[in-house]
Amino acid sequence: MAKDIITERSVDYSAWYNGIVKHAGLAENSPVKGCMIIKPYGFAIWEKMRDQLDKMFKETGHVNAYFPLLIPKSFLSKEAKHVEGFAKECAVVTHHRLMNDPNGDGVIVDPTAKLEEELIIRPTSETIIWNTYRDWIQSYRDLPLLINQWANVMRWEMKTRAFLRTTEFLWQEGHTAHSTKDEAVEETRMILDLYAKFAEEWMAMPVVKGVKTENERFAGADDTYTIEALMQDGKALQSGTSHFLGQNFAEAFDVRFLNEKNKEEFVWATSWGVSTRLMGGLIMTHSDDDGLVLPPKLAPIQVVIVPIPKPNEVINEAVDKIVEALKAKGVSVKYDTDKKKRPGFKFNEYELKGVPIRIAVGKRDLAENKVEIKRRDTMEVSHAALDGLADHIEQLLEDIQNNLLARSKAFRTENTVEANSFEEFQSIIDGKGGFVSAHWDGTVETELKIKELTKATIRCIPLKAKEEEGKCILTGKPSSKRVLFAKAY
Amino acid sequence: MAKDIITERSVDYSAWYNGIVKHAGLAENSPVKGCMIIKPYGFAIWEKMRDQLDKMFKETGHVNAYFPLLIPKSFLSKEAKHVEGFAKECAVVTHHRLMNDPNGDGVIVDPTAKLEEELIIRPTSETIIWNTYRDWIQSYRDLPLLINQWANVMRWEMKTRAFLRTTEFLWQEGHTAHSTKDEAVEETRMILDLYAKFAEEWMAMPVVKGVKTENERFAGADDTYTIEALMQDGKALQSGTSHFLGQNFAEAFDVRFLNEKNKEEFVWATSWGVSTRLMGGLIMTHSDDDGLVLPPKLAPIQVVIVPIPKPNEVINEAVDKIVEALKAKGVSVKYDTDKKKRPGFKFNEYELKGVPIRIAVGKRDLAENKVEIKRRDTMEVSHAALDGLADHIEQLLEDIQNNLLARSKAFRTENTVEANSFEEFQSIIDGKGGFVSAHWDGTVETELKIKELTKATIRCIPLKAKEEEGKCILTGKPSSKRVLFAKAY
Repeated sequence: MAKDIITERSVDYSAWYNGIVKHAGLAENSPVKGCMIIKPYGFAIWEKMRDQLDKMFKETGHVNAYFPLLIPKSFLSKEAKHVEGFAKECAVVTHHRLMNDPNGDGVIVDPTAKLEEELIIRPTSETIIWNTYRDWIQSYRDLPLLINQWANVMRWEMKTRAFLRTTEFLWQEGHTAHSTKDEAVEETRMILDLYAKFAEEWMAMPVVKGVKTENERFAGADDTYTIEALMQDGKALQSGTSHFLGQNFAEAFDVRFLNEKNKEEFVWATSWGVSTRLMGGLIMTHSDDDGLVLPPKLAPIQVVIVPIPKPNEVINEAVDKIVEALKAKGVSVKYDTDKKKRPGFKFNEYELKGVPIRIAVGKRDLAENKVEIKRRDTMEVSHAALDGLADHIEQLLEDIQNNLLARSKAFRTENTVEANSFEEFQSIIDGKGGFVSAHWDGTVETELKIKELTKATIRCIPLKAKEEEGKCILTGKPSSKRVLFAKAY
Repeated sequence: MAKDIITERSVDYSAWYNGIVKHAGLAENSPVKGCMIIKPYGFAIWEKMRDQLDKMFKETGHVNAYFPLLIPKSFLSKEAKHVEGFAKECAVVTHHRLMNDPNGDGVIVDPTAKLEEELIIRPTSETIIWNTYRDWIQSYRDLPLLINQWANVMRWEMKTRAFLRTTEFLWQEGHTAHSTKDEAVEETRMILDLYAKFAEEWMAMPVVKGVKTENERFAGADDTYTIEALMQDGKALQSGTSHFLGQNFAEAFDVRFLNEKNKEEFVWATSWGVSTRLMGGLIMTHSDDDGLVLPPKLAPIQVVIVPIPKPNEVINEAVDKIVEALKAKGVSVKYDTDKKKRPGFKFNEYELKGVPIRIAVGKRDLAENKVEIKRRDTMEVSHAALDGLADHIEQLLEDIQNNLLARSKAFRTENTVEANSFEEFQSIIDGKGGFVSAHWDGTVETELKIKELTKATIRCIPLKAKEEEGKCILTGKPSSKRVLFAKAY
């Protein structure tokens, strides 16, 4: 049983997460500290996420490009807040050659190949992109520029966890340039909506849309919008951010344009990104003690067919028809004909990997024109007639997708509560966790004090927060709306 | 006219190439020496190449994964030939933090954040992947492993040119593991065929399939297979390589498996790759003095429609129908409604960008139920009836694709000649260039001597080379088959 392989959530949530990552074949540690290897099955899920996001970006007018991996060190200090908040922990390239070690048989860094200026592996690309946009933008006719890049980035992290926080990670970073503030703000918000739609409709992961406090803002942004999801252990996961950068990077890199009135202005900017961190959110939103659970829309294999107990002519013939009918509907299906593994072993394996539907095909059932079906989300077993099976499976995949979203929404509703005093706040945060909606006086000092006392941070000021008279849970000072607190990844 | 913008090939071939890259909006230099920025239009072409290759890899059983960008320095010296031939000119990461400069307002490298072991930005990933395969492979049941990765890699280059030779470039690298030598050799050859098929059928770029001489072999390979294309200036372009690695990396990283007889053996390996260099090949195979010429299968915009002289209701109505009919056939089409640019300007622009077909739609033609069509490959102008226009365009796109391949094949045939003496050889190489098929005595010394005297290298020993008694053009020693020489990029 999978339960013997993976530590149960109730015993050790963190060990459970690592167990899923390992035993579902998603990723593993590499010899380079903090950098992971994304294994084929994990990468296949990421590819599905990437392809769908890419489609959504293109449908909203964005194009892809590619900017260099390395950034001159001096670029990082051009936008003051950017370097302050952010750019310190990064990989620095200082030399460009190795040489044979004269004292041994290994290689050493060639001391004569020192770079004049050190280069940084991009932690994010605002600086090099805005340095480029200076040449690309002269007039309002060159705007908007709606560019996205899929890339690897690197931030030196001391404490890492597969997908959630790694030194190297894969992401997309959108960098857009606009002639007006309104248009840039609109872009920032449009992307936030796009991210939320992707999270809900594809990952079946509900998110709260909101804006970050000044303290939690991206370094160099005027406003950071975020989607925040709630994991099963009651901790929040920041899952995507969309930044309104004002004219900060345009000023730092001197990017001006002639407006329609032939007057020179600085360009308005946005940037936005989601990363392989989404994989961590996907795992923690749905999976259980038996292994990974995948929403059908992101499952590399949606249906697996296992012959009972082994493939034979009768079974193969029936399966061929099922496979053909499912493929005609665009369902990805695998027929596992491996004779060396027993059905029970296969069942466990595909449950570990989160395959949404398993069909077991045996002689006895076939004699009655039926097959056995197990859905991964509820682990329910049922039988279905061969006649109309593909339609049934198609409907079931949709049901599973919907059920996963409904389930994670219900979980979030249960775990989002209001707190009206600090005692109440602290007991929830120390207890079951979750999102806590509470009044806050709007100051960084209070925010940091609450974090110090409880480890909870303000995840966001929800866009939907209603105006409401209240008092800050810590200072008692007046507040006009509740913000969302949680402990977070 | 485009001729005023781009230097003609006959005047300065290299300036012509750079002009195409610049004025078609494909790429530009970045502030980081040798690293290019791939602009949206260039990247859209690369995406089409990548997607098609990815499909072909998956159809032949390969899966994608992702391995770390950084490689511990010590890994590079494990395979002796690999480090000897190859791994020296690379970017070295020595530190992981910056700090504010106490003497100024910039940032400096934090001297306390020195890495214990330096890390190399991958120039290729054999070492880190084979270090990983040690844990993934125990028995013959784990084989074959058929893994590909799309990634950025970096090789410090002194002299760079957009796409053809850049410090950072994008590529795919396949790394497969097999239980027998035969199976690994078969994989190497199968991939070579796949690359050749892609080059011919998609890029309309004919290639010679062959094997490299020992001297030109990939560092660490037992055999390197190559596809070689001929550019319009008579120089060859190595366009893709597929390596049979024997058991070299398995031995270096101690990757063994239990075979079916329960005996331990080292694993057999292949690796293979194509890169953004293909973009350079694509440009130089087809383009002319008017700009880029793209084969329809790789054109981001296959058809552009220009209203004459400006969009109006009558024209828009006709164009909407044309666009709809073309899209229904899967043709990518752009209707350029920009009122600020005159038709002649647009014509030049899309010719520069290599759009295969331009349709000009004007009132006068519409009154006669026709439109004007210009094909980019031959620059021929014709008229076509509105009735059945989409079918006509579809056929024309196919004709253009075929014509480009036929044309480049004819060029190659004209520029592939046999030489039977060194004088003849030298006069061809110094003259019009091209592929020169000649006898060679099989020694590295002769190969290097010929290179020194003529700058020509042995591009490959063609797989199709027929057995033929002959004498080496330089030494007169006996030779059993002709090899293919050329000056090369």
